[in-house]
Amino acid sequence: MKEDEGLPEVLEEVARSVEPVIYDALSENASPEFQEVLLYPVKAGGKRIRPAVLMLSCEAAGGNPEDALNAAAAIELIHNYTLIIDDIIDHGEVRRGMPTLWRKYGLTMALLAAVQYREVVSELLLKSRNSSRLLSIVDRYVMRLVEGERLDVLFEQVGREDDPYVVEHRRMSVGFDDYVDMVARKTSSLYEASAMMGAVEAGADENIVEAFRGFGLNLGISFQIVDDLLDLFGSTVETGKQVGKDILEHKLGNMLILRGLERMDGESKRFFMSVLRSKQVSQEDLDEALSILARTGVRENAVKEAWLFSEKAKSMLSMLPDSKAKRLLFELADYVVYRNR
Amino acid sequence: MKEDEGLPEVLEEVARSVEPVIYDALSENASPEFQEVLLYPVKAGGKRIRPAVLMLSCEAAGGNPEDALNAAAAIELIHNYTLIIDDIIDHGEVRRGMPTLWRKYGLTMALLAAVQYREVVSELLLKSRNSSRLLSIVDRYVMRLVEGERLDVLFEQVGREDDPYVVEHRRMSVGFDDYVDMVARKTSSLYEASAMMGAVEAGADENIVEAFRGFGLNLGISFQIVDDLLDLFGSTVETGKQVGKDILEHKLGNMLILRGLERMDGESKRFFMSVLRSKQVSQEDLDEALSILARTGVRENAVKEAWLFSEKAKSMLSMLPDSKAKRLLFELADYVVYRNR
Repeated sequence: MKEDEGLPEVLEEVARSVEPVIYDALSENASPEFQEVLLYPVKAGGKRIRPAVLMLSCEAAGGNPEDALNAAAAIELIHNYTLIIDDIIDHGEVRRGMPTLWRKYGLTMALLAAVQYREVVSELLLKSRNSSRLLSIVDRYVMRLVEGERLDVLFEQVGREDDPYVVEHRRMSVGFDDYVDMVARKTSSLYEASAMMGAVEAGADENIVEAFRGFGLNLGISFQIVDDLLDLFGSTVETGKQVGKDILEHKLGNMLILRGLERMDGESKRFFMSVLRSKQVSQEDLDEALSILARTGVRENAVKEAWLFSEKAKSMLSMLPDSKAKRLLFELADYVVYRNR
Repeated sequence: MKEDEGLPEVLEEVARSVEPVIYDALSENASPEFQEVLLYPVKAGGKRIRPAVLMLSCEAAGGNPEDALNAAAAIELIHNYTLIIDDIIDHGEVRRGMPTLWRKYGLTMALLAAVQYREVVSELLLKSRNSSRLLSIVDRYVMRLVEGERLDVLFEQVGREDDPYVVEHRRMSVGFDDYVDMVARKTSSLYEASAMMGAVEAGADENIVEAFRGFGLNLGISFQIVDDLLDLFGSTVETGKQVGKDILEHKLGNMLILRGLERMDGESKRFFMSVLRSKQVSQEDLDEALSILARTGVRENAVKEAWLFSEKAKSMLSMLPDSKAKRLLFELADYVVYRNR
């Protein structure tokens, strides 16, 4: 990385170096007819934040980021793998402004692609330097992610009535600690894995790897809080997602909804809860619910909370010497808070 | 294994030694609430043929089967992993006489369980002796299996109309070579992996590992031909599956259907094809289609074909010294042909 580069240039550079590795790995082991399906999710783009965290962590821990290229490609593929599954679970129809994989190619091909992605991840990690350690990090954190995803679904307030397990285990009351625990699993897992894998590929000591884990954990929580904010108050043009999706999906596992409800009372609270628990919501009711939520001041509160977690993430790396890569990781921790997509 | 044991005792012994490893691995990394979901598919039983192939291959190649226990648990979990996905893809409602996982716990939990299974497989393989080699075999053969499953779906003659990819790529003509290629991928993959992994854990040379691959390849084809037979002419009480499911699922990728059609003509053939291509089939029409098929003599032909592949499987191991384990693998190759479930 050149001395004068800022974060946007670095993200672009990471994308440029990781994407060919991803495309080759996906193409290598698949028939041409299946390649079309496999390449679709990664061609749709994405911010490539996780591979950037991985490669910058490698460099900040004293390694050569080029050595971490296979691992960086793997973590982006794991991310896409979990998105393919997530979109099936949440019946998500649009991602990155395009139809989701199951929407485009059907459930069967989406599932087969997901299985294939996971194997390609293994292939890439087996080609990496510290392959056993990396594979072990990946399997541990994907399992954490699964539990987070399970909780996220159980935090929904209504829906999935054809699914007795969800109805039976639904959480009708969710506290802030429950939220942080769920998010630490659902979202932080891959950030923890990214940062740790970068440090491992740099050959860093255990205490340094652990510091990077702490960075990823807090960065992930910050990231999710801002995702929650963008879901409700972002711009579809920027995010490629529908505004208010979390309300339509009845999610109590959104920090702004959770904090907002604490601050509402009387008629507003009753109305908001009724919208959150409605199976069909009109655009008018959704807009009204969003404006009730905005009036509680949770938007400002969310930015502040996200900022606190990003600051905590940075503090985890205090023992590292100053470097261009470390500064970029700090810049990334700021970007996560102030991004609009 | 004791000198006087036959195959049934060995299969029971394998089940007894592998099951605790499977249960522990699944339980270790999951919340109690999720364990219920995770343990359901393996508690439903199964023949445990793949772990038996793995452990017997290890012993026949001169190793200690105890050393292959983690790998044996892993291969049974991979098998169950692919069944969870397969039942979702095929809308299968019953397996081993019980509701399938998605039918019992809903699609969301079934998908999360599938993801978890794959990670537990990695954990188990990382605990094995030749972990990198085993992981590499698993990822290669699961990818082959994915392609086989994709082809199996494309060999269906109708259905999945909401799925433009399938409709567009459907194979309206399937030859015997296409069938064998599909089955070698869909079914042999895990037998090849089982046999190779056993040999690898025994520390066998490459040419021996390759011989075991050949054994697994042919055993798998034999197994699938008999599965095709049992699907059409088995007993629900024995198989735990609905009779004629492949006809109801419009599959041309069933050897008896494929060979049977070659032997039919005139009105019989027209009637059989119309049933195979019907979205709704009455029990009366299904019975009639099955009796047309039986009259072509494909049942006897299928047993003979399966027997030929089993004999070929055995011949692959000709360079191995005689041993109790080798004799049991041969017995298993016979059992695959003459089983009724």
